[in-house]
Amino acid sequence: MNNITDIHYGPLPEDSPYVKPFRFHYTQNGKEKSWDLLKVHDSVSIVIFNVTRKKLVFVKQFRPAVYHGIISSDGVQPGSIDMKKYPPELAVTMELCAGIIDKPISTIEIAREEVLEECGYDIPVERIEEIIRYRSGVGTSGAEQTLFYAEVTDEDKIASAGGGVDDEIIDVVEYDLEEARKLTDKGSVISSPPSFLFGLLWFLTNRAPKN
Amino acid sequence: MNNITDIHYGPLPEDSPYVKPFRFHYTQNGKEKSWDLLKVHDSVSIVIFNVTRKKLVFVKQFRPAVYHGIISSDGVQPGSIDMKKYPPELAVTMELCAGIIDKPISTIEIAREEVLEECGYDIPVERIEEIIRYRSGVGTSGAEQTLFYAEVTDEDKIASAGGGVDDEIIDVVEYDLEEARKLTDKGSVISSPPSFLFGLLWFLTNRAPKN
Repeated sequence: MNNITDIHYGPLPEDSPYVKPFRFHYTQNGKEKSWDLLKVHDSVSIVIFNVTRKKLVFVKQFRPAVYHGIISSDGVQPGSIDMKKYPPELAVTMELCAGIIDKPISTIEIAREEVLEECGYDIPVERIEEIIRYRSGVGTSGAEQTLFYAEVTDEDKIASAGGGVDDEIIDVVEYDLEEARKLTDKGSVISSPPSFLFGLLWFLTNRAPKN
Repeated sequence: MNNITDIHYGPLPEDSPYVKPFRFHYTQNGKEKSWDLLKVHDSVSIVIFNVTRKKLVFVKQFRPAVYHGIISSDGVQPGSIDMKKYPPELAVTMELCAGIIDKPISTIEIAREEVLEECGYDIPVERIEEIIRYRSGVGTSGAEQTLFYAEVTDEDKIASAGGGVDDEIIDVVEYDLEEARKLTDKGSVISSPPSFLFGLLWFLTNRAPKN
């Protein structure tokens, strides 16, 4: 899925549609304060359980932000990246099926589209259940994320769908319950966001079949 | 804790020490791609359980990024914020005790300091247990976050500590197990990040006393 080469950085263009940073000013208890932050889209994520095969359905993809996080923690400067030492596979994450809300349709419709586009399962919104809403970040961005749960079957699978749209390169992977539970065990070092860990543990606690 | 007034925005200064946005370029399967992202610090968060009173210890604070996320989802423009309709209390989050790694000391030492500075419990690192490492974000920032667990007692409490240092204004709150469990229930709309939800559910699954 990867075959990634020629990593380099440049300045952020002023008209970036994805990252819009600014400084937020306010007065708290009479004292002027500021906080630097950026606007990001609200989003959805979906825990998908294939009941035919009793497998959880996750997605894997190369994430530039994680690659950068890894090399910058080690003090590596752009322009001097040793790609043997830091292969792009280090930054392939495991995540819930997810997407940003960038169209004027309902949140659950966005979730339905992502299940189809990323994972290839075509299900109606009536089979998607809203679980919890929280803030996807609280430090530099504070968008809302809605977590959904959907059960799918092998019959819902569209052979030609999944893997993302446009330029996306997304691998769909399946985990059985025991393998998945281990990801939340003490000692895990996982290339996943906390929303993945919460969605997974929520499923294991509230929806996983008890054998 | 709040008394927040005079909210407004301005451009991000080029020398912001907190938000350093840039464009990341790479080639994947022969195709040139780019991704806009920003550098953030690695961080720690700590699930704290007061065993004397069987209470979880969380922190609450006003988060500019969440305030902005709420008003921008509604299309409110800076300069025309109706603070009666959008009181700052909307953006007071509930979180685990947490902090960024911005000093050359070990990750667990950072955790120890945050437990003292934010929550007022003075405990040695030997009583802090590392649980899981994950990526705090995967879209625009990919820093690592390490989740810890610590049990504290009323004897560990330093009356003069807690509430943050410097300009921080942090409220320490305590939840009993049943109240805390409800926060992870279906239907919750919570002003918390997913790391809070995961840490809480991890504790309830793996460490909470079974009556």
